[in-house]
Amino acid sequence: MSKVKCGIAVSVDNCVAGHNMTEAKPFGDMPTNLLHRWMFDEPEQHKAELAALTDAGAYIMGRNMFGPSGGEYDKTWQGWWGDEPPYHAPVFVLTRTPREPIVMQGGTTFTFVTDGIESALKQARAAAGERDVSIAGGANVVNQYLAAGLIDELWLHIVPVIYGDGKRLFEGVGMTNLEILDVRSTPMVTHVRYEVK
Amino acid sequence: MSKVKCGIAVSVDNCVAGHNMTEAKPFGDMPTNLLHRWMFDEPEQHKAELAALTDAGAYIMGRNMFGPSGGEYDKTWQGWWGDEPPYHAPVFVLTRTPREPIVMQGGTTFTFVTDGIESALKQARAAAGERDVSIAGGANVVNQYLAAGLIDELWLHIVPVIYGDGKRLFEGVGMTNLEILDVRSTPMVTHVRYEVK
Repeated sequence: MSKVKCGIAVSVDNCVAGHNMTEAKPFGDMPTNLLHRWMFDEPEQHKAELAALTDAGAYIMGRNMFGPSGGEYDKTWQGWWGDEPPYHAPVFVLTRTPREPIVMQGGTTFTFVTDGIESALKQARAAAGERDVSIAGGANVVNQYLAAGLIDELWLHIVPVIYGDGKRLFEGVGMTNLEILDVRSTPMVTHVRYEVK
Repeated sequence: MSKVKCGIAVSVDNCVAGHNMTEAKPFGDMPTNLLHRWMFDEPEQHKAELAALTDAGAYIMGRNMFGPSGGEYDKTWQGWWGDEPPYHAPVFVLTRTPREPIVMQGGTTFTFVTDGIESALKQARAAAGERDVSIAGGANVVNQYLAAGLIDELWLHIVPVIYGDGKRLFEGVGMTNLEILDVRSTPMVTHVRYEVK
């Protein structure tokens, strides 16, 4: 059966972004490349991890990952990723504000889901068929799926920095056993892949 | 020059113990062996990490690591570790309540320091001579030394469990760059050794 996976870059203190996101600051107060520099500086050393970020049959993300919130963005904003986003698959965006689906180039569609994480997962599973579903982020959405026991595999890309204060993975997630599937590291990032029990 | 090191077992969400510690529950609400089972179940696979926990020339710990707080313990409690604690060296206990030093068997002495982390470190450095100083725990003390930029090396032993709510490493620690020195893993624990920049 297809799996529900999440691969996400975190600081050592499990921050995935800073607070105060705006259109000019997609990662809020956190420098944009702080957690993602390894992807651009040494991609050949992280082929499997990078491939896994974009090999799902469908994606789920939060409204805050799709873009800045607020009235002025709701009708025209089409995500951070330009005309041809890297997903090439259906993306379900969890939101409180209904909006018509957006069809992008290259196979990405953004579908807005207003009735919760289980509905989004059901739609994503149906869209993905036999392929995996990826929970793309941000922290709040990953935490909701973890807390609900709906993630099968968690691949942390741990960057050697204590960020201090930001949007944090695992907040509100209760005791959960994991199994270490794989660990490897370069000087820029430590990859730890867990099965969620 | 000797270094200030900290090696500590944490959950994936950076908890080192649960809340509500008592004499019967040294790790509070957290099961005692949750983060430390690897030490007892497969010690031969973690020789370097275990040796590092007890190879310093002096140790610093918080009053809550030394034992449960409260009036009835203050005068008679001699730590969790029996007549011959595993430190075999001077241990400086950060506390608000003055107390005479305790001399244990095997070279461990507990000296109570009431004038703060810098004083404790100064005393520990003097006692350690050319050997390293170890910040033994708990979370609050490690966080104070990290926030003050006084730790040179941090060795995290990351156990594959999300604990959910407990005494957490990195709280109150601001942005801090680390350098990955070494990463290795067994199915029970991932060791990541960082230099603190």
